[in-house]
Amino acid sequence: MLKNYLREAGEFHFAELARGISPLTMVSIMRLLLLSIFTLFFSFQSVFSHPLDPLTEEEITLVRNIVLNKYTNTSHTHSFHYVGLDDPDKAIVLKWESSQPNTMDIPRQAFVIARVDGVIHELLIDLKLQHILSDNVHTGNGFPTLTVAEQTQAIALPLKYTPFIESINKRGLNISQVVCCPFTLGWNQCPLRPILNIGLHIRKKPPFGPKQTSYGTFQPEGPGFKVDDHSLSWANWKFHIGYDVRAGVTISLASIYDLEKHKSRRVLYRGYISELFVPYQDLSEEWYYKTFFHAGEYGFGQSMVSLQESQDCPPNAKFFDAYYAGRDGRPEHVPKAFCVFEHYGNILWRHTETGIPDEPIQEVRTEVSLIVRSIVTVGNYDNIIDWEFKPSDSIKLVVSLSGMLEIKAVEYKHNNEIKEEQHGSLVSANSIGVYHDHYFIFHLDFDIDGEENSFVKTDLKTESSRWKILRSGLVDSVDQSRGDDTIDVWTQKNRDIMNKDIVMWYVMGIHHVPWQEDFPIMPLLSAGFELRPTNFFERNPVLKTLSPKHVKWPTTCSKKN
Amino acid sequence: MLKNYLREAGEFHFAELARGISPLTMVSIMRLLLLSIFTLFFSFQSVFSHPLDPLTEEEITLVRNIVLNKYTNTSHTHSFHYVGLDDPDKAIVLKWESSQPNTMDIPRQAFVIARVDGVIHELLIDLKLQHILSDNVHTGNGFPTLTVAEQTQAIALPLKYTPFIESINKRGLNISQVVCCPFTLGWNQCPLRPILNIGLHIRKKPPFGPKQTSYGTFQPEGPGFKVDDHSLSWANWKFHIGYDVRAGVTISLASIYDLEKHKSRRVLYRGYISELFVPYQDLSEEWYYKTFFHAGEYGFGQSMVSLQESQDCPPNAKFFDAYYAGRDGRPEHVPKAFCVFEHYGNILWRHTETGIPDEPIQEVRTEVSLIVRSIVTVGNYDNIIDWEFKPSDSIKLVVSLSGMLEIKAVEYKHNNEIKEEQHGSLVSANSIGVYHDHYFIFHLDFDIDGEENSFVKTDLKTESSRWKILRSGLVDSVDQSRGDDTIDVWTQKNRDIMNKDIVMWYVMGIHHVPWQEDFPIMPLLSAGFELRPTNFFERNPVLKTLSPKHVKWPTTCSKKN
Repeated sequence: MLKNYLREAGEFHFAELARGISPLTMVSIMRLLLLSIFTLFFSFQSVFSHPLDPLTEEEITLVRNIVLNKYTNTSHTHSFHYVGLDDPDKAIVLKWESSQPNTMDIPRQAFVIARVDGVIHELLIDLKLQHILSDNVHTGNGFPTLTVAEQTQAIALPLKYTPFIESINKRGLNISQVVCCPFTLGWNQCPLRPILNIGLHIRKKPPFGPKQTSYGTFQPEGPGFKVDDHSLSWANWKFHIGYDVRAGVTISLASIYDLEKHKSRRVLYRGYISELFVPYQDLSEEWYYKTFFHAGEYGFGQSMVSLQESQDCPPNAKFFDAYYAGRDGRPEHVPKAFCVFEHYGNILWRHTETGIPDEPIQEVRTEVSLIVRSIVTVGNYDNIIDWEFKPSDSIKLVVSLSGMLEIKAVEYKHNNEIKEEQHGSLVSANSIGVYHDHYFIFHLDFDIDGEENSFVKTDLKTESSRWKILRSGLVDSVDQSRGDDTIDVWTQKNRDIMNKDIVMWYVMGIHHVPWQEDFPIMPLLSAGFELRPTNFFERNPVLKTLSPKHVKWPTTCSKKN
Repeated sequence: MLKNYLREAGEFHFAELARGISPLTMVSIMRLLLLSIFTLFFSFQSVFSHPLDPLTEEEITLVRNIVLNKYTNTSHTHSFHYVGLDDPDKAIVLKWESSQPNTMDIPRQAFVIARVDGVIHELLIDLKLQHILSDNVHTGNGFPTLTVAEQTQAIALPLKYTPFIESINKRGLNISQVVCCPFTLGWNQCPLRPILNIGLHIRKKPPFGPKQTSYGTFQPEGPGFKVDDHSLSWANWKFHIGYDVRAGVTISLASIYDLEKHKSRRVLYRGYISELFVPYQDLSEEWYYKTFFHAGEYGFGQSMVSLQESQDCPPNAKFFDAYYAGRDGRPEHVPKAFCVFEHYGNILWRHTETGIPDEPIQEVRTEVSLIVRSIVTVGNYDNIIDWEFKPSDSIKLVVSLSGMLEIKAVEYKHNNEIKEEQHGSLVSANSIGVYHDHYFIFHLDFDIDGEENSFVKTDLKTESSRWKILRSGLVDSVDQSRGDDTIDVWTQKNRDIMNKDIVMWYVMGIHHVPWQEDFPIMPLLSAGFELRPTNFFERNPVLKTLSPKHVKWPTTCSKKN
């Protein structure tokens, strides 16, 4: 009721003011009026079903209004670089969870990184009280995550800049043949980067590949998982799927129901990709600075793409939307930002026993697992990120890469013409695919049967350990940072990791030496790891799990269809 | 016609002789008579559609008759340890293949390892001429692959041996509670192995695991592959699937049709698992000798189990039978020894292009791959072996392990009671799962665009190489061998590997530190590698491959069913 009134009032003012003033001023005045109304009359009710739910569309709008309300002067320029849930303390979340169903009053706060007149502010906002709890100016090095709008503008800018168009024409090309990418600079001093070489690919169209046969799938009982907003239960698993504009999909409060102990057991408090670091290994002046932090510089969450039905996720998938704050603070909608589906066909366990005379035993169980999938495209690479939950209680994390190679134009057409180190492979005539790595840093806050966990590194005698920790951070300003607030720095504190609430950052690296088959779009390349329960259960937890039933396609009917 | 006559003649003689003589002599005389008839009258026609087809049921019988015919004396004892196709030379096979359709006369020979009166013979038999080409006595160390009958007998023997039954009773157990396994001894001198400890598991029955939801799958156009006996064509792939009693499934003559070059291109002449070496790492007297060669000692092919429909292979699988020679030389039938099926659901490639203002591009292609699956159970482990062929022209080899752990009974119930090194992990009360490795040795005879291939080891600067070669052999006598005919020995010849017809033995190791969840049957653990084309094609070969079409389940009809 109040809301409707407000809208009408707003529209009224808009109509009144629309006469005789410039559009820019008009909007500013309108904003001023609207905000005053908000502050005075509008009582916002935060609606969320779980304390870790991502900020809703309405909450993002509220955050924007609160920030703009503080910096109302029309000369201010604002840009929102991060708007996300400021998690309640773990103790509070756990208390909330254990007291279900509950009416427990739980804080709801947003963390915001915004630039006002070029100054970086880190704000903590109470969404219930609609009040700024703190507003700190970032004085250190670095620049916050680029907004999508900034990236889009940066791409479009040179295409309309006459000196650039002319420089392209001089090289015998038309500006419509050029694609620009927004590169972060790191903390180098050089203000401008030269254009190296430009190559033009007149691509031979390859023939159509082999035909892939059609198929049908069906779940006659429907999916095996239950969704309550962002909370999901499936098989013996329960967890919460969140979303963050910087980190992308977050998995929280993952717990397993132990069928023997008749109780739910906690495993993972929080897991997400905190950073994807992609350093290129060309030492030339035009390339050396290309070391991208996909989360910290470009925003892993805001780079998530809308998933295509039956293509990115199978036909039995359920899709979830996401919202993030755009540069202007308004909510941006990502339809089908991630999906959840059941995956069939693997073997769960099997055994053939031939050791008992005249009593052959053969037992097989097939597996249904649950996959949470999202796809993040930062620049040239598409990263398909799968969290796979298994009935045997392991969590498998698989990242698959596809997309376009980062190419350097060279004069060479054949390998035998190359005399100097090119820091890459000739993937096509005049095209070097530059060597690079993909380091995925997984933030894994384990709570195995509680918070008090220990990290034990097992070095096997004949095999060196594979653990390593790489620098990364969660809310530090990554772009142009000088490394003064990283895990490296935190690690030097050398704090106790026995029976503490510890967090692991697991680094998975893919060293990519490109080759011709990766050009122009590379076929999928996957890497992953599995978190398997180790002496967590007394025995194989799926020993008495039955295979899913296979249903026959109604062939007599299918002819009619 | 001749065959029918023969059977009647045989039956006639049998009836005549059946009176008044002992069954054993009777059979011997009958065999003598039958063999004479074979030699005199029977003209066998070898029927095979491809020179690499495994020996047929009839050919195995013929081999048996030829060998028994040579050693007819009734006092002879015979056992057949290996009967398999002796491959024609590569040059002949390639000539045969390139001259399709052809009536080329190609040799058909069997290689046989048989023991006659305890002496090991290696025979080469011409199946067309029904003639023994060579008969060499093996004078070196080692014992040929155990026959299945020997293994079965060894298992049953102690269960009927009074002193053993009594020794079990003394330990407070009943013989029906004991399972015996046939262990190979290596070339150690100890004639007998003591029994260490005996533990009895009164297993708490675990509760039924979480329900897995049912599903339906369907290929409305049928499968995308075509089978001609053992030859298979699918998508751009063509290859031959063979079977060998020692090696199991063999993949031969794999070639890719290059859509741009409009020709078929050879990739792999022959690939199979030449050995699976499983050394246990307990140094105690009762355990140190447990180092099993699954192919050389137990026969990987004869240990293949019959696959279960919709469990071991999905409902859209096609199954293939296999035959091997039993100890008596007669053909043993393995129904559904391996299967071939199409696998859906992975992403082939994708890209989202945001670099072109106002022209967002998003392209996704899903993948159908082809899997050849067999399952080999040697003793306690089930090895699921997948050869996966991809439309992007890579071959992925994945081995997944399940089955029972090899257990050592100990007095300990809890880890804190253990004071000495146990060479394993306490996986349940009184049960140590002993540390061990699984080394899969893949024989890969690459013929990339022809026989002249080179092996290049690329050592990246910051990463050490992962290549290693382990000792293995193809037809050497493995059991109790002293290592005098191994790849180690062959490698020392230091022959040229530049532009030669080289073979690679790739070793994949899984070091298994067992834990409670592996007990009593371990959930699936997979490892694998992918053979990806590298600068074999000019560009991504699946750039214009379309996604398979997904067909909707006829829901209106399915209700009636």
